[in-house]
Amino acid sequence: MIAHTVYRTFTTTQRREFVRITGDVQAAVDESGIAEGMVLVSAMHITAGVWVNDDEPGILEDTLEWLDKLAPPSWQPPANAVAEALSPDPGDYRHHRGGEDNGDAHWKNLLVHHQVVLPVTAGRLDLGPWQAVFYCEFDGRRPKRLVIKVLGE
Amino acid sequence: MIAHTVYRTFTTTQRREFVRITGDVQAAVDESGIAEGMVLVSAMHITAGVWVNDDEPGILEDTLEWLDKLAPPSWQPPANAVAEALSPDPGDYRHHRGGEDNGDAHWKNLLVHHQVVLPVTAGRLDLGPWQAVFYCEFDGRRPKRLVIKVLGE
Amino acid sequence: MIAHTVYRTFTTTQRREFVRITGDVQAAVDESGIAEGMVLVSAMHITAGVWVNDDEPGILEDTLEWLDKLAPPSWQPPANAVAEALSPDPGDYRHHRGGEDNGDAHWKNLLVHHQVVLPVTAGRLDLGPWQAVFYCEFDGRRPKRLVIKVLGE
Repeated sequence: MIAHTVYRTFTTTQRREFVRITGDVQAAVDESGIAEGMVLVSAMHITAGVWVNDDEPGILEDTLEWLDKLAPPSWQPPANAVAEALSPDPGDYRHHRGGEDNGDAHWKNLLVHHQVVLPVTAGRLDLGPWQAVFYCEFDGRRPKRLVIKVLGE
Repeated sequence: MIAHTVYRTFTTTQRREFVRITGDVQAAVDESGIAEGMVLVSAMHITAGVWVNDDEPGILEDTLEWLDKLAPPSWQPPANAVAEALSPDPGDYRHHRGGEDNGDAHWKNLLVHHQVVLPVTAGRLDLGPWQAVFYCEFDGRRPKRLVIKVLGE
Repeated sequence: MIAHTVYRTFTTTQRREFVRITGDVQAAVDESGIAEGMVLVSAMHITAGVWVNDDEPGILEDTLEWLDKLAPPSWQPPANAVAEALSPDPGDYRHHRGGEDNGDAHWKNLLVHHQVVLPVTAGRLDLGPWQAVFYCEFDGRRPKRLVIKVLGE
């Protein structure tokens, strides 16, 4: 059994941003030398996620807008009445009592999930033709870490 | 270490449909011959998911209705005012500019997640008594693929 | 390859409750003796989940309140008009026809997801400094099981 671990650090220019990392994950698989196995791609933060979806700018923009309705930031006005009703009842996140302002990013982490496991077959990520891997930043503009763990033979 | 890979193709009759696949996953484990390990069950599409829940028709019907509120299709009228408010602000998905009509299925993929990892103990899927595995189709009526990857010994 | 399996049973005092289990997961890794690998942490129920996030009481309270809006219980009045609109259209969950009252817990299971896979590096859970592992109970006050499966070498 071979295990290979790679860390990547992202400092996004936007507070919320999708960063395509399919190539980074395949590179980690290549370095490991495995032909068959699994690779775990996991954000090391509680305000980020990993999503496998379409590298199409429209759906990514749609999704950031939608996540701001479901998991509304309190550092900007609610997008609409539904976003307001989904906001914390005290008006602001209880989490912000300690000086934080990223409660919405914790909820986005919950919705998107912080990790995925991908199959490796014959040395390649065994993905469908439209599946791209994204690091999903929800509280960026500072260095954030991701771990890629390859396991196989 | 043993790795065993099985592909399954689904062509659902409904656009959105839950297909129980617990038996397919156990069959892949049986074929692999492993006693201990993990099995990754992963949709190879960006408009499908995998969910482990109850094979009870009521909750499955409840869930499809609910997903249409949270992730509203634009090819039918919004279910209610909340579904309308959660729809993309431009009125239609930006993703549809290229001719697609399945933006909602991408969001359902995000909510449900495209994969699960299940434990294998003594040759059996190590699930609770009510846990069934479902392939979740959100843009069906055409062949869609799923990969089952067994890893263990 | 080493596989090690641990079961844990939780009987929460609240119907919905987050239980920190990072220590339990690390203990299972320690017992396995592996240095490199992955650990699967998986609720064996369809009304529970596993979340990796911040062990900060404010965000956990925010999150339980928010989940009751997105996935509204029918055994208490809806939190607000949005929660009412996201409730099942028949007024109650179809799932409740058989005498159940936990439809909301199935939806919370979907949103949170029932399992996570964590990396193990040099014998330690390879988590970021703020990442804690929580068993998320959504229909508690009775014994519920979780499986921890360690795989590695």
